[in-house]
Amino acid sequence: MKRIAILGASGYAGQELARLIAGHPEMQVDLLMSAREGQDPPPPKNSYEQAIQPLDLDALQYVDGVFLCTPHGATARFAAAALETGAKVVDLSADFRLRDPELYAETYELEHPAPALLDEAVYGLTEQKRGEISRARLVANPGCYPTAILLPLLPLQKAGLLQAAAPIIADCKSGLSGAGRSATATTHFGSVHENFRAYSPGSHRHSAEINQEFGNGDILFAPHLLPVFRGIYASIYVTPAKGTSAADMLACLEETYAGEAFIRLYGLGLPDLQGVQRSNFCDMAALQCGGQVLLISAIDNLVKGAAGQALQNMNLMLGIDESEGLL
Amino acid sequence: MKRIAILGASGYAGQELARLIAGHPEMQVDLLMSAREGQDPPPPKNSYEQAIQPLDLDALQYVDGVFLCTPHGATARFAAAALETGAKVVDLSADFRLRDPELYAETYELEHPAPALLDEAVYGLTEQKRGEISRARLVANPGCYPTAILLPLLPLQKAGLLQAAAPIIADCKSGLSGAGRSATATTHFGSVHENFRAYSPGSHRHSAEINQEFGNGDILFAPHLLPVFRGIYASIYVTPAKGTSAADMLACLEETYAGEAFIRLYGLGLPDLQGVQRSNFCDMAALQCGGQVLLISAIDNLVKGAAGQALQNMNLMLGIDESEGLL
Amino acid sequence: MKRIAILGASGYAGQELARLIAGHPEMQVDLLMSAREGQDPPPPKNSYEQAIQPLDLDALQYVDGVFLCTPHGATARFAAAALETGAKVVDLSADFRLRDPELYAETYELEHPAPALLDEAVYGLTEQKRGEISRARLVANPGCYPTAILLPLLPLQKAGLLQAAAPIIADCKSGLSGAGRSATATTHFGSVHENFRAYSPGSHRHSAEINQEFGNGDILFAPHLLPVFRGIYASIYVTPAKGTSAADMLACLEETYAGEAFIRLYGLGLPDLQGVQRSNFCDMAALQCGGQVLLISAIDNLVKGAAGQALQNMNLMLGIDESEGLL
Amino acid sequence: MKRIAILGASGYAGQELARLIAGHPEMQVDLLMSAREGQDPPPPKNSYEQAIQPLDLDALQYVDGVFLCTPHGATARFAAAALETGAKVVDLSADFRLRDPELYAETYELEHPAPALLDEAVYGLTEQKRGEISRARLVANPGCYPTAILLPLLPLQKAGLLQAAAPIIADCKSGLSGAGRSATATTHFGSVHENFRAYSPGSHRHSAEINQEFGNGDILFAPHLLPVFRGIYASIYVTPAKGTSAADMLACLEETYAGEAFIRLYGLGLPDLQGVQRSNFCDMAALQCGGQVLLISAIDNLVKGAAGQALQNMNLMLGIDESEGLL
Repeated sequence: MKRIAILGASGYAGQELARLIAGHPEMQVDLLMSAREGQDPPPPKNSYEQAIQPLDLDALQYVDGVFLCTPHGATARFAAAALETGAKVVDLSADFRLRDPELYAETYELEHPAPALLDEAVYGLTEQKRGEISRARLVANPGCYPTAILLPLLPLQKAGLLQAAAPIIADCKSGLSGAGRSATATTHFGSVHENFRAYSPGSHRHSAEINQEFGNGDILFAPHLLPVFRGIYASIYVTPAKGTSAADMLACLEETYAGEAFIRLYGLGLPDLQGVQRSNFCDMAALQCGGQVLLISAIDNLVKGAAGQALQNMNLMLGIDESEGLL
Repeated sequence: MKRIAILGASGYAGQELARLIAGHPEMQVDLLMSAREGQDPPPPKNSYEQAIQPLDLDALQYVDGVFLCTPHGATARFAAAALETGAKVVDLSADFRLRDPELYAETYELEHPAPALLDEAVYGLTEQKRGEISRARLVANPGCYPTAILLPLLPLQKAGLLQAAAPIIADCKSGLSGAGRSATATTHFGSVHENFRAYSPGSHRHSAEINQEFGNGDILFAPHLLPVFRGIYASIYVTPAKGTSAADMLACLEETYAGEAFIRLYGLGLPDLQGVQRSNFCDMAALQCGGQVLLISAIDNLVKGAAGQALQNMNLMLGIDESEGLL
Repeated sequence: MKRIAILGASGYAGQELARLIAGHPEMQVDLLMSAREGQDPPPPKNSYEQAIQPLDLDALQYVDGVFLCTPHGATARFAAAALETGAKVVDLSADFRLRDPELYAETYELEHPAPALLDEAVYGLTEQKRGEISRARLVANPGCYPTAILLPLLPLQKAGLLQAAAPIIADCKSGLSGAGRSATATTHFGSVHENFRAYSPGSHRHSAEINQEFGNGDILFAPHLLPVFRGIYASIYVTPAKGTSAADMLACLEETYAGEAFIRLYGLGLPDLQGVQRSNFCDMAALQCGGQVLLISAIDNLVKGAAGQALQNMNLMLGIDESEGLL
Repeated sequence: MKRIAILGASGYAGQELARLIAGHPEMQVDLLMSAREGQDPPPPKNSYEQAIQPLDLDALQYVDGVFLCTPHGATARFAAAALETGAKVVDLSADFRLRDPELYAETYELEHPAPALLDEAVYGLTEQKRGEISRARLVANPGCYPTAILLPLLPLQKAGLLQAAAPIIADCKSGLSGAGRSATATTHFGSVHENFRAYSPGSHRHSAEINQEFGNGDILFAPHLLPVFRGIYASIYVTPAKGTSAADMLACLEETYAGEAFIRLYGLGLPDLQGVQRSNFCDMAALQCGGQVLLISAIDNLVKGAAGQALQNMNLMLGIDESEGLL
């Protein structure tokens, strides 16, 4: 039984991890810690509930794996402390996603708090970096939007199926849980229910991460806020390389992801959010629309976009079957 | 007091018209008729409620204006009957939107039921066709999606601010009322609530109408279904003509629509659905996103996208101030 | 044209008043004031929008009517200042609802800030106190729940149709707007959406107001929070007096409220929230359930439960037709 | 591995059973059958998905347990056929809940289709009838509302804590999934979203079942429809026996349900729907409200109110630990 600590356990991602690990046959949660302990109302009374303690880095020395669900900026020093104990670390914050500390400083308006660790941190897009993740001490868990966007795009780019200079439009829609548990004007029921809107189009922080991994500054990322709790739906418009069709793209994705437990391709029909909610699946489709191709990708932002992929990565790092606790 | 008949009064658009006209100082609803009269449960008990009668075309001879909210295919013959009485007709169905009867037949899989009237029908995008509408006997009220897409795009096209051959992506999201009152698997609460999905991307019937008016087959129209009741949010991605910026586009829209009662431009901030629900407004913004420009357009699909624009048009046709009953 | 000031204009009730008065032929809003001016994001861009100013009591001297939508405790001194200018005042806070300053102190944990005004304040349940309201300088607008509960119960009590000592159960459900615009854990979308719960059963502050007006401590008031924005639905279980049936109660309500513009009785079918949202109606029904009778009452908490009834009262106080601006 | 068949697998309860059994270590679903096979769109693409076949009673001879999720009236003959093969049967329809065939005929307006089986059918309210269920061949799974109402009330009645002749009010609120997957005006998104209403108060079919088990015709059962998908929230108002308080009732429930895996008592705070959704828990509280006591009970109508309790019962009937597949 691997012993696990979750820091930042009072937020949505931390709670989701606790829920997932409660059903994991080879892991147990030893520590749930939160800096907000005592400030928040207790989470809903559920079977995996256990007391959340104040943050205490000394307690980490007895665990095998640490999930960091704390805010960016604060998280990097927890990572350093956890690594010193020999534990494997999956960081769900943005602190180790960008390899370049200057880009980090510009994007997050903050000097990077632990640049020495940047080199060894592995970007944890599981299906694309499985080998590196297995050998890593520190994994930077991808952002929710980048996960939804990169999983369909990277194989097509690698296979040369996208026209080189053409712009890529990623019109993305996320449920409110992506905005976290903080009570703000943005998260007020009256602002979200029976509403819909774009936010930060072209300037969202995930753009830096997306374009770093895609190796190309041309993805226009426009996030929108859905009146649902869970899920990201990405509608990605690409110009195919000459002679390439949606069917070619679908075939490429099917080949790339054959045997993957968590990738599902739709040959008929279209993905929807209900098909992926509370699961670690990423559902995809490719549709010919005149000269363009529409790629659709749907995930649960709290699972494949956060806690689920984090657990998938931790499984790999601790030598456990990758899908344990996730199916 | 102008006397008004509404055919197809049991549907959402018909009900919305009855609601609007109840507050109109120069119109009164004399006839509410529906082929489904007696089949449906009565509408919610509201002040503008009055008995819905079975369809009876003879009764139309005493009215000044007729709104047709009946299904396409069936509607054209009602239009012909209403015109014979000398009434002005606004048709909210799709029967007179496409000028080419062959395109109609292909799009709606139906021979056009009244091709003789196609020539005189005016496409009622009010802010673009005010003069023709004022003189028309028969107005084809635009579809909800085409209204949201064409209002921002047409002035930019006319001003030469869009790059000629570049694809235009219209990623649109609609509330469920766009699907009508019929009870189907699609409109079931369990299919819509806490869900989101694309439908008919690249093949929706409104594509024909959009591209007819835009005069260009290059608009990729991808509709999605939102778990809200009212509203359309269009995120339209365009490539600007050389040397053109989002600011230029905003300036063009401000100049074009200066003095318009129902067009609002956002220089700061972004439109959302709540800002337009239950109103006849179309809210717009233009944002620079790298080399592309994101145009946003938000309307209430039942008002500016249906009953509101229909009333705006009928006001013009009957010599009433265009915004009467709508502010 | 009567000149109107709204204090506390940034909250839901203040916004709703501004919306209603924008359509009122004999009133105009001269002043929108808020202590939070500059702290909040601006309200959605709508046609009735005008600049909200910081609170300034001196400005009140030129207005005919003042609506107070400020928090209880702070409001009483605004009322005093407004009355000195000769303006009519409708207070939407709880400051003048309870006639007994000791009960106020106990209920709101606060010494009453203006006890000298308590005697002349009229409890503004319009259909029950029309005469007094017409002559009043200061009206205490009823709470949303008390409005929904008292409108059906008071006539039945007066007519002796309720069994004297029997408990009355008022199981009430309110939309989230009743909790106001403040961002808290309670109003977070994630706490409300796809959820439902009771709160403060038997101990809610409105109990004092309900039982003061009902003249009887036996109403068990149990509020619950609905995942909707607007509306209160009260299911009230009463024991009829010997020989009395639901039909007798319905007849009594019909007789009492004959000619009322905003009371609708359901002889067939049942009220629902959609039937009253955005209107000043109170919809009622009475159903025999074995030996008990279930009274149902539905209102929009922001209209008949707040801004609408306040406007109805101000109309009376200023000599305007009671339903002006409300139909 | 016990082999399981689910009849009526295309409905919500059948789908929920398939989901639960997919995580059960000692059961496997061998047969998913539906009379509507081929008529409905396929369920969302999920990992437990498998082909749904047309109904074929011959296929039942190889299974150990049969869940009947088919409509009442049709179900009884499937039960008879399944029992002949020696399989254990849990019937989720209403066909065997009422012991008296005349009461069944009156309630469901249908002659009972298999009265010979009524005697041996056990009413499967697990925590109250565990012994009988363990020995049964045929279990009538309780209705969702009766489960939520009876679990708190039966122990209090047995302990004599309820005042004998006093009426009991069960004001219950259910999510829309209780209305099933059929597309009707009632289940249309536009009828449910941002709405709330009572339905069939005092005359709902579950009243017969509730009063049969409670042995007393005095429970006033008033169901209401919530704009959520999952969950039942029962607010039950009782008059305590002389000298009895809410604290006594809570103590009684704690003692009765000590050691139960799926009953949780709230000493502090109040249950809500989110606390029980997707779980087999029944959360309860007891609150003193003047002379009355408010009992609150919350369940997921599809789990503890249907598929979960059915699986709990089948576990007992097949000699498996009762909570297997449910925690």
